[in-house]
Amino acid sequence: MPARVTTGPIYRSRKVYREVEHRNTDGSVTALRLPARTIELTTGEDFEVYDTSGPYTEENPDLDLERGLPRARESWERPAPVAASTENPNLRVQTQLAWARAGIITPEMTFCAAREGMEPEFVRREVAAGRAVICANRRHPEVEPMIIGRAFAVKINANMGNSVVTSSIAEEVEKMVWATRWGADTIMDLSTGSDIHETREWIVRNSPVPVGTVPIYEALEKVKGDPTRLTWEIYRDTVIEQCEQGVDYMTVHAGVLLRYVPLAAERVTGIVSRGGSIMAAWCLKEHRESFLYTHFAELCDILARYDVTFSLGDGLRPGSIADANDEGQLAELRTLGELTQIARARGVQVMIEGPGHVPLHKIPVNVEWEEDWCHGAPFYTLGPLTTDIAPGYDHITSAIGAAVIGQAGTSMLCYVTPKEHLGLPNRDDVKVGVITYKIAAHAADLAKGHPRAQERDDALSRARFEFRWHDQFALALDPDTALEFHDETLPAEPAKTAHFCSMCGPKFCSMRISQDVRDYARAHGLTSVEAIEAGMAEKSEEFSRSGGRVYLPLTPQTGTPSRPR
Amino acid sequence: MPARVTTGPIYRSRKVYREVEHRNTDGSVTALRLPARTIELTTGEDFEVYDTSGPYTEENPDLDLERGLPRARESWERPAPVAASTENPNLRVQTQLAWARAGIITPEMTFCAAREGMEPEFVRREVAAGRAVICANRRHPEVEPMIIGRAFAVKINANMGNSVVTSSIAEEVEKMVWATRWGADTIMDLSTGSDIHETREWIVRNSPVPVGTVPIYEALEKVKGDPTRLTWEIYRDTVIEQCEQGVDYMTVHAGVLLRYVPLAAERVTGIVSRGGSIMAAWCLKEHRESFLYTHFAELCDILARYDVTFSLGDGLRPGSIADANDEGQLAELRTLGELTQIARARGVQVMIEGPGHVPLHKIPVNVEWEEDWCHGAPFYTLGPLTTDIAPGYDHITSAIGAAVIGQAGTSMLCYVTPKEHLGLPNRDDVKVGVITYKIAAHAADLAKGHPRAQERDDALSRARFEFRWHDQFALALDPDTALEFHDETLPAEPAKTAHFCSMCGPKFCSMRISQDVRDYARAHGLTSVEAIEAGMAEKSEEFSRSGGRVYLPLTPQTGTPSRPR
Repeated sequence: MPARVTTGPIYRSRKVYREVEHRNTDGSVTALRLPARTIELTTGEDFEVYDTSGPYTEENPDLDLERGLPRARESWERPAPVAASTENPNLRVQTQLAWARAGIITPEMTFCAAREGMEPEFVRREVAAGRAVICANRRHPEVEPMIIGRAFAVKINANMGNSVVTSSIAEEVEKMVWATRWGADTIMDLSTGSDIHETREWIVRNSPVPVGTVPIYEALEKVKGDPTRLTWEIYRDTVIEQCEQGVDYMTVHAGVLLRYVPLAAERVTGIVSRGGSIMAAWCLKEHRESFLYTHFAELCDILARYDVTFSLGDGLRPGSIADANDEGQLAELRTLGELTQIARARGVQVMIEGPGHVPLHKIPVNVEWEEDWCHGAPFYTLGPLTTDIAPGYDHITSAIGAAVIGQAGTSMLCYVTPKEHLGLPNRDDVKVGVITYKIAAHAADLAKGHPRAQERDDALSRARFEFRWHDQFALALDPDTALEFHDETLPAEPAKTAHFCSMCGPKFCSMRISQDVRDYARAHGLTSVEAIEAGMAEKSEEFSRSGGRVYLPLTPQTGTPSRPR
Repeated sequence: MPARVTTGPIYRSRKVYREVEHRNTDGSVTALRLPARTIELTTGEDFEVYDTSGPYTEENPDLDLERGLPRARESWERPAPVAASTENPNLRVQTQLAWARAGIITPEMTFCAAREGMEPEFVRREVAAGRAVICANRRHPEVEPMIIGRAFAVKINANMGNSVVTSSIAEEVEKMVWATRWGADTIMDLSTGSDIHETREWIVRNSPVPVGTVPIYEALEKVKGDPTRLTWEIYRDTVIEQCEQGVDYMTVHAGVLLRYVPLAAERVTGIVSRGGSIMAAWCLKEHRESFLYTHFAELCDILARYDVTFSLGDGLRPGSIADANDEGQLAELRTLGELTQIARARGVQVMIEGPGHVPLHKIPVNVEWEEDWCHGAPFYTLGPLTTDIAPGYDHITSAIGAAVIGQAGTSMLCYVTPKEHLGLPNRDDVKVGVITYKIAAHAADLAKGHPRAQERDDALSRARFEFRWHDQFALALDPDTALEFHDETLPAEPAKTAHFCSMCGPKFCSMRISQDVRDYARAHGLTSVEAIEAGMAEKSEEFSRSGGRVYLPLTPQTGTPSRPR
């Protein structure tokens, strides 16, 4: 049972809630309570940022881990069932996808739109097209809805969960709170040890972000870890149990077909997906297609009842540079595309999981294939790692790939921690993983020209240029570490307002020069360019005599001096 | 005075020297002693990697820091002077560029070729074309020559140096040894505090890699930090002093022209290059072009005498996302292109420094511009940082940019440490910076298809798949950290040979499945694909009856099942 979780505001920030009006299908209006974080700058201005941390970052949060978070969504309208799809008009469901197709804007859509600074109708269209998903199990009323899709800010997921070898429930709940504090948009509980059900219950009830799982892990525990003893019934009951608890999205490795398994066997690293190898083992033993594949429609109908989103798993993802973009990976991806169509026809939202280990030059085509074959479903990738040779630093090898695949259109990035390949992440690793992936996601948002992304860069850079050290820390993804590093070299408080830093020292600072130029110009009522030119005019005669060239190149080959464009 | 530096072999490695024959101009042969590191695998095989660490990683190095490293290059042939260029046929010089153009393969070229696994003639051609540089001051006989150019492995530089605020000579020398231990291909001594000359002397005499400096820093110290008091004479004498000491390449901000300064003044972060702002201040005060620009040919002739390479500095590089690829940056780059032509015409090697802070989508064009305007000179970039919002993690924000700009053709990447923008890097930061940049450089090498790059990834991945934990650690860029992280979860020695890890535990491991499939197949004398198909044949009748489809999709829209390509 969790003893304690991290609470309280982030550095120089306060948690705020804005009211957003949602118009229900009956014309009435519901006020939705939208969370955000306001950073208080020393200039007196506020800077608001997207916030994933739930009530934990309030000044004095009213928390009770046994009870769980407030169930805000219980009071929201749930529209009536609608047709699952044109293909299945008689199948009535209550999912964001079906409602969106029916032209209904749900409270969840309004909430997501406000968080992203976009119009609810735009959100509805993206969900209807299957290009975006809102992972919000109706049994998870505590969740603050968010949207995953290429038209929106790139999201990140943080994995946690105990294993047979290590960790406790309390640690895992704290990891969830800790990960969302630093910006995890969703978390996945990948527990494989004891108390899987109870661990998940604590996490779901207290998580302000969507929770994902890989149900085959728990199913495998029920058969004492022997994949060949797995059955559809055991798996189905596990999925229902998890749906009932409120899991928002589930990784399902239904694309691992029997005939694909040999494609992976001769790889350098074979099958590295745990779920993938479980299904491969089952297929080999049974010598037939897995129950995930043969019972896929039935599975869709279970997920539809709760509006749980499929995260179609890439069981054959490459686990090394050598295996990237190989036949096994691509064969499975095509199958995931077919399954996407089946799921959508039954009203179920879908995202697609992606690699793995991929060298830089092979990354962008992964997004093209996924969008093409999987009908635009949001792509959700693990990294990818751009080299195999840096265990201990795979948050970095993979952040490089994550930024590039995010730029290419991936909607959500699953973090990788420094412990990847070596051990289970502890609390510090979780934070490093989350911040690293916030960087990758933000770099992708900038590259994609996300309308609001650069505002924070500009605000921080202005603070940096003006030596507003505290504002620079406050606007950073991780203020505590920035402050700590600054303290390491210049610990005294005056250094936090000093117009210099430890790199050049007080005698000379490059950024002051620029300010001096600007100040001089402004004092003379000139723009800076005019200030220079005014001075230059005095020297114009001399300048003319030299043929308009301040400096004559010393060889005839060098052409005319350069001019600014 | 340095008290102690880190010595001894890297984990499970031994320093080796291979003899490489060099044919001198008189037809005689000299044996060059080429350093490398051999990683000893548990399979009995050796894996050799490029090594930058000098004698410090020998088992029992014979070191004397006061004396410095052995002066191997003193016994190498130095060919006779040749014409600086066709433009200046009467100017006779002894530089790698001039010799290369004259068709002479120097010992340095032979040495670099062997290190890179390429032909000496290919190296000569790249140097002659100015597409690659060999930074090796004739006064630095201790250096182990290396080559910087887009046709070769991407290199990394580590900055160090004391400042007014902090640090000592001993610390800086240890940082040099420490940085090269982990793979720094060159180091820059950016000292700005006291004892600049003495610090540099210790570093150069003991450095196995090329040393770069920014001479204006020392010149500025001579005028008590007042840039307006700088003169050509003070600067020239400083450069000569540093050339005499053996500095291999020098950053010169000769492209900061008076008329460019106002272009930077209205930026979000103005001028962030220290050298750039020094020159800008001087230009503004004097209201004329800087002595670096007006005396550039004279400067070339000084550098040519020692074969010191120009690193033409980007004094107007962008210091924030907002300022990336702006007029000021591009105007200066065009001027650097002109200066490149002047330097080459006088027989001097040139590389070009690049940004800074650049969002992902604006990175590749930087390489295009640089190669186009600067006539293919090797590009040497600082990062670039792909976002401004993560102080404390700028090794990561910049490694993303570094990998991408390396993939696009950048030859050397200047590292950024976690302390960037916040303080001076300590020993740990230096290591993190170096390893992070080795990752970026290697990711770029893989993406560029460098012939030998993937061998290490494959070797490590095979070790990983076969649970050869010690080999996985040994092949890693940082074996010590990999080992330490593994110990954190599973400290016992048996875990280092166990066929499982802490993620899934002993009961179930995904990678074993793949091995089981492969083992089964091999035991039956089949390839894996045949093994599956053999089993499948038994079921072929049933398979046929279902129309060749194992699983019939549940809606008519889903098309035919996918097939592996």
